[in-house]
Amino acid sequence: MNIELLNTGSELMLGRVLNTHQQWLCRRLADLGYVVSRQVGVPDTAQDIQSAVREALGCADLVIATGGLGPTSDDLTRDLIAQLLGKKLRRDDAVLDHIKKRFAARNLPMPKNNEIQALVPEGAVVLPNPNGTAPGLAMKIEDRRWEMGDGKLLAPSSISDLPSPKQWLVLLPGPPRELRPMFDNFVVPLLQREFPLEAPFVCRTLRTSGIAESLVQEKIAAPLGTLVAAGLEIGYCARTGQVDVRLSARGVSGEKVVHEAEAIVQKFLGAQIYGFDDETIEAVVIRLLIERKKTLALAESCTGGCLAHRVTNVPGASAVFLGGWVTYSNESKQKFLGVRTETLAAHGAVSEAVVREMADGARRQTGADFTIAVTGIAGPGGGTKEKPVGTVFIGLAGKFGTVVERRLNCFERETFKEVTAWQALEMLRTRLV
Amino acid sequence: MNIELLNTGSELMLGRVLNTHQQWLCRRLADLGYVVSRQVGVPDTAQDIQSAVREALGCADLVIATGGLGPTSDDLTRDLIAQLLGKKLRRDDAVLDHIKKRFAARNLPMPKNNEIQALVPEGAVVLPNPNGTAPGLAMKIEDRRWEMGDGKLLAPSSISDLPSPKQWLVLLPGPPRELRPMFDNFVVPLLQREFPLEAPFVCRTLRTSGIAESLVQEKIAAPLGTLVAAGLEIGYCARTGQVDVRLSARGVSGEKVVHEAEAIVQKFLGAQIYGFDDETIEAVVIRLLIERKKTLALAESCTGGCLAHRVTNVPGASAVFLGGWVTYSNESKQKFLGVRTETLAAHGAVSEAVVREMADGARRQTGADFTIAVTGIAGPGGGTKEKPVGTVFIGLAGKFGTVVERRLNCFERETFKEVTAWQALEMLRTRLV
Repeated sequence: MNIELLNTGSELMLGRVLNTHQQWLCRRLADLGYVVSRQVGVPDTAQDIQSAVREALGCADLVIATGGLGPTSDDLTRDLIAQLLGKKLRRDDAVLDHIKKRFAARNLPMPKNNEIQALVPEGAVVLPNPNGTAPGLAMKIEDRRWEMGDGKLLAPSSISDLPSPKQWLVLLPGPPRELRPMFDNFVVPLLQREFPLEAPFVCRTLRTSGIAESLVQEKIAAPLGTLVAAGLEIGYCARTGQVDVRLSARGVSGEKVVHEAEAIVQKFLGAQIYGFDDETIEAVVIRLLIERKKTLALAESCTGGCLAHRVTNVPGASAVFLGGWVTYSNESKQKFLGVRTETLAAHGAVSEAVVREMADGARRQTGADFTIAVTGIAGPGGGTKEKPVGTVFIGLAGKFGTVVERRLNCFERETFKEVTAWQALEMLRTRLV
Repeated sequence: MNIELLNTGSELMLGRVLNTHQQWLCRRLADLGYVVSRQVGVPDTAQDIQSAVREALGCADLVIATGGLGPTSDDLTRDLIAQLLGKKLRRDDAVLDHIKKRFAARNLPMPKNNEIQALVPEGAVVLPNPNGTAPGLAMKIEDRRWEMGDGKLLAPSSISDLPSPKQWLVLLPGPPRELRPMFDNFVVPLLQREFPLEAPFVCRTLRTSGIAESLVQEKIAAPLGTLVAAGLEIGYCARTGQVDVRLSARGVSGEKVVHEAEAIVQKFLGAQIYGFDDETIEAVVIRLLIERKKTLALAESCTGGCLAHRVTNVPGASAVFLGGWVTYSNESKQKFLGVRTETLAAHGAVSEAVVREMADGARRQTGADFTIAVTGIAGPGGGTKEKPVGTVFIGLAGKFGTVVERRLNCFERETFKEVTAWQALEMLRTRLV
């Protein structure tokens, strides 16, 4: 089965926004055993949208298009698709009523523009949108044998007989908080009814740290050889300091193949594996802290709250995370964490001695089982010959004492913060396992 | 000129990673006056990559492909492109030397696998990669008149004479910190030399808050009418509580058209405009604080460091940001911010009274000109009838006193944090302008 994802929006082509739909929809589909064959992004001009839809309908069984259902002049998808399929638009009174009610609930008059969101191509299934005004639309393409004639799809014809007689075109609104529940509540049931899976699909991702991508492969490729012959697919995905190994297989023996492959990877890379599937390093750390009934506090300088933000993204973090400081100035390091004036004067704010006092101070103040402290030079300014931009000291305090690691993270500001936060969490994780 | 961006990687199709290349490259190109016509994502299987490249070469003047240059078995792009173009791969000794040196610098032996990264299609320009092992590759397609023959591009032929005689195919490595400097240092000069702009391109984005997308259009569409006739393009991009208005035009009068359009939008939406182009709300707030020589401190409960993280993402924030607390527990609110036991007992941690004491406590402790405090129920648990999940109190303290806003942000955890942080920053911004 071929699935094509079509993301419309000039803001995508101009790089104004990140295409989060791609990841979210692809991930959701993959979890259900459906894999997107191709994803296409086009600007929201009539010609681009129509030719992309035409092309997608030429090869995909299911086309999911996002965006362009809003009330403004660059929201063209609804009209263009109707035109392409030769369908008339009709006003759906239930949809119009829903839109009016949404404005009324906020004591606002409905702008005239929003009326166009109640227009629905003939024969289309309306997908309700409790989180916005534009409904989604699902259209069954009755006869797949298309003929292309100047800028228009002409159906039916007799050009070709495609493998699957069924074809659906689904239009979803752009805002993620409208698209996501609509997909889960209405598109997934439709997908499972119209395109039931022929063979189960199993996928497992093992997340490693501290080992290069090529070395990961060197260690596991040969031992996995026979399983590859049995249908195992291996994928590698490298990020700074981390490599994901993705194991997947289809068919009735898929589960067994992936299970055996996982055991082999565990054998050869065990110490480097920090998590599975979507588990982030912060989720692993919070899980380990909860399991061991230990608490955590944070004292951040150069990460500026990034560590606390990541830790508190994990549901349930409040059970083990007591709190944190963002001590950006020397004064705040002294006043709130008890870093000594002499230490700052002798070693500077970015030093092993200061990070040690930050970690110890945070532990003294909160009584947490573990505290992490971070100080460094994010740049672009502030570097010296001894301590160039990117220099970081990470301190970890606990019953065992206080250990400090020095790192050199030469990245732009935001990556610097993320990488440093990651190293700090990994330092705690290795002590917890 | 047609530019196509091709992102290869099964991890994209399985939704394992976010396609940050799309935004970054599209943005960079747009800033230079080049607009990507189409973006395509495909899995890293031979057939998909080859057919996507073939299709792209059939219509684009410049094809930029990302990913698949790594040392592992799913890194197929280099081989496939060479095969498609009928070029042999040769070992580039300078590249091999560079790879060996990178491993040597880290006292590691070079894994055998990495040798394939030194293979280069004949005639390709090698784009150096100081931040990784795989070089980029730029290939000039000498004769654009292609002929398709079973699975292969056969050139030259006489099928068609395309508008531009020049065509380039550029392959870039997947890791962002390798791709980005390579693009800026090597692809941009090549692009500007090979495809000089015919007409200047001007683009300006005005970012508004607190007004619905349809109302934005209702207010400005008619007044902008004559400029649209003169070549102005208007784009709308809505996020939670925010709408971006993008004004763009090409040609010698482009600057004038966009300038006049901006004045009109300012006239009709002035109070709602918080920033321009890429400026984030946190960057605006930091800019205003610096201009007014005012300082800021933060006391966060439910946002858990998100506010501090966003504020410290802004270069130069340290000039005005004194520090912050993440007081996740009642104890930390009492101990570090001086919230009174009686207040917590009488009103609960999520209350106007508590957020007021948090903001005041943070101001007392730091002496900051402004402090923002946030307390709320991120969920999924913890809601009551009076204070359902999503309830947030945001306090802003300053010389003028302490004001509190109550909001209901019904989103999943991470969006809840981001939206709440946004509202808090907007509250400070409106007081600073």
